[in-house]
Amino acid sequence: MTAPETDSPPRYAVLREAMVAAGLDAVALVPGANFMRIFGRAFHQNERPLVVLVPLEGRPAAVVPALEEASFASLGFEGEVFLWRDEEGYQAAFTAAAHAIPAPNRIGVEGQRMRVFEQFALHRALPAAACLDAQSAISRIRLLKTAEDIGHLREAIRRSEAALEETLGAVRLGMTEAEIERILVRNLFDAGVQELSFAPIVAAAGNAAEPHAVARQDYPLAAGDALLFDFGGTWQGYRADITRTVFAGEVSDADRAFYESVRAANAAGRAAVRPGLTCGALDDVVLRVLEASPHAGGIIHKTGHGLGLDVHEDPYIQRGNDTALEPGMVFTIEPGLYRSGRIGVRIEDNMVVTETGGESLTSFPRSLRIVG
Amino acid sequence: MTAPETDSPPRYAVLREAMVAAGLDAVALVPGANFMRIFGRAFHQNERPLVVLVPLEGRPAAVVPALEEASFASLGFEGEVFLWRDEEGYQAAFTAAAHAIPAPNRIGVEGQRMRVFEQFALHRALPAAACLDAQSAISRIRLLKTAEDIGHLREAIRRSEAALEETLGAVRLGMTEAEIERILVRNLFDAGVQELSFAPIVAAAGNAAEPHAVARQDYPLAAGDALLFDFGGTWQGYRADITRTVFAGEVSDADRAFYESVRAANAAGRAAVRPGLTCGALDDVVLRVLEASPHAGGIIHKTGHGLGLDVHEDPYIQRGNDTALEPGMVFTIEPGLYRSGRIGVRIEDNMVVTETGGESLTSFPRSLRIVG
Repeated sequence: MTAPETDSPPRYAVLREAMVAAGLDAVALVPGANFMRIFGRAFHQNERPLVVLVPLEGRPAAVVPALEEASFASLGFEGEVFLWRDEEGYQAAFTAAAHAIPAPNRIGVEGQRMRVFEQFALHRALPAAACLDAQSAISRIRLLKTAEDIGHLREAIRRSEAALEETLGAVRLGMTEAEIERILVRNLFDAGVQELSFAPIVAAAGNAAEPHAVARQDYPLAAGDALLFDFGGTWQGYRADITRTVFAGEVSDADRAFYESVRAANAAGRAAVRPGLTCGALDDVVLRVLEASPHAGGIIHKTGHGLGLDVHEDPYIQRGNDTALEPGMVFTIEPGLYRSGRIGVRIEDNMVVTETGGESLTSFPRSLRIVG
Repeated sequence: MTAPETDSPPRYAVLREAMVAAGLDAVALVPGANFMRIFGRAFHQNERPLVVLVPLEGRPAAVVPALEEASFASLGFEGEVFLWRDEEGYQAAFTAAAHAIPAPNRIGVEGQRMRVFEQFALHRALPAAACLDAQSAISRIRLLKTAEDIGHLREAIRRSEAALEETLGAVRLGMTEAEIERILVRNLFDAGVQELSFAPIVAAAGNAAEPHAVARQDYPLAAGDALLFDFGGTWQGYRADITRTVFAGEVSDADRAFYESVRAANAAGRAAVRPGLTCGALDDVVLRVLEASPHAGGIIHKTGHGLGLDVHEDPYIQRGNDTALEPGMVFTIEPGLYRSGRIGVRIEDNMVVTETGGESLTSFPRSLRIVG
């Protein structure tokens, strides 16, 4: 990656289109998925702010901790860099960077990624500018995945599914959730994933009823328990996010029926994906299957979320979201049913919208499986 | 954990002392280390805000995503809970929760943890209140570690150091940084850590000059390279954070001298720790050793940061910080020297302040080691 000579390098072109559409004359980017998409590498988000200001026209400017100078130089950044050292603090660098770009009236920030202390520093540097949450507008640069992006996702998913298969073969009655989680994590790295997409969820029985459960050190897997895995590894920054629910040793007829309701909703959702369908309509398709089942009281969340360099991103598959699906969008379909303290079942696939419909990038079997 | 009957349960006592000292009449907590310290468990931070409002007097109130209802119920929360569902959005819950506590004039937030979209929602709910970055004030609840906290840190460190020893024994010339990182990660989980404290840094030669380097897939370790490991695992949420730098196959006299300057600074810092010394004075002790060496131009960062449930927290060991060390504070001493594109050396220990001095919780040898 070399520094382009122009004031409007191509790497900002899509971002600037999004800025025009949102009526922004500058954006402030912090390390994260959008930053990685534009600059090709990740930085830590810690107590030392690193912020890039991109004006609609003209050269960008950056606030960079001095210790990141060499890492930042590798980006081939086109604008002025304002370094700050630990002992002097960051505010002067924010103010200098803000004055290095044309004074903005409306500056957009990534509301789900920028932290309050960074926004306060930005506001002190630009007190006259309106600071707006432009999470979705800025993230449009990642909304439509390229063939290369999809290739990375396929690789992350392939390795993650192999790790799940290994893990299911190793599960035994009496193991704790924490033990099974450790086996899964080891299998993920053995399968060659580069990072965990997120701290995995391994939850049995009543704990599986909590969508973001923490693995217990002290609960031994018992016959008849549902056992839910929500996990994934990364490849080149792209994050698999897969959920499968299996049963330990045996399954009751009631639990089988519960499971099959979720499986039917997942299948209906995968079959419905096509360009032009709205995200809200897709959520409807999935939720109606659950609502028509005897378990409708067990619905507690929407159908899915976008997936890519972030594990939760646009488009959200949710009632009220009238975004129309377009080829290249990638998202999860992950219906679930939960009965507090008793059972949780979720089946999650990663879908890409094609020219004519949808394709599930995940292919791990969804039929009910007994393990242990 | 059961819900106390009183309006001022003990778990808010230290927080409320900190609020009085900072002149706050409410705080808004988001999931993270402070939240975990008070409520005993972690929640995901994602597109669904979860915020607890704690007034100086009276019962707290919470904004909770509906899908987290069961998990949240496990906290034994004393106040009113305002659930919101995906399809309706979160603003109404923020507004209702804000009206359930005595109207604050000054509300403190965790500036390094709360995200901008959460703060904007809070501001819409409480437009008349001043919203202040109270990261340090709120984090005072975790500043002095208990014997139990220290025990968890010792366990995290013991397992992390065992993983490093295993990894150093496996390193061979010609391996890539990414390969060595995978070995380290596997050894960490084999050693029984519960999570990674952060994505580890494994960097050789010029890449080690970048304090937050990303492991390369394509650089084979060569004889004479410095090889830096900055890593750690967790135990009960407490995060080890250890750095050691070794050399591959051989070491030049110049690099040995470079290394020994860092080792001397690390030793001086460890020896200087005692109650009453300010953080700034401790940074001085360490930096003066580096400044007096022939490599002073290679200084790019402060001496260290606090460590506990967060991997970077108060106290920051940095010039200008006049916080006096107190028994129970835990922080890193991690001097480093860097020569861009050529070499980086950092040696990082985890210190606890005792009644009479300091103790290094880390004990992995610091003498120059040749591996591979």
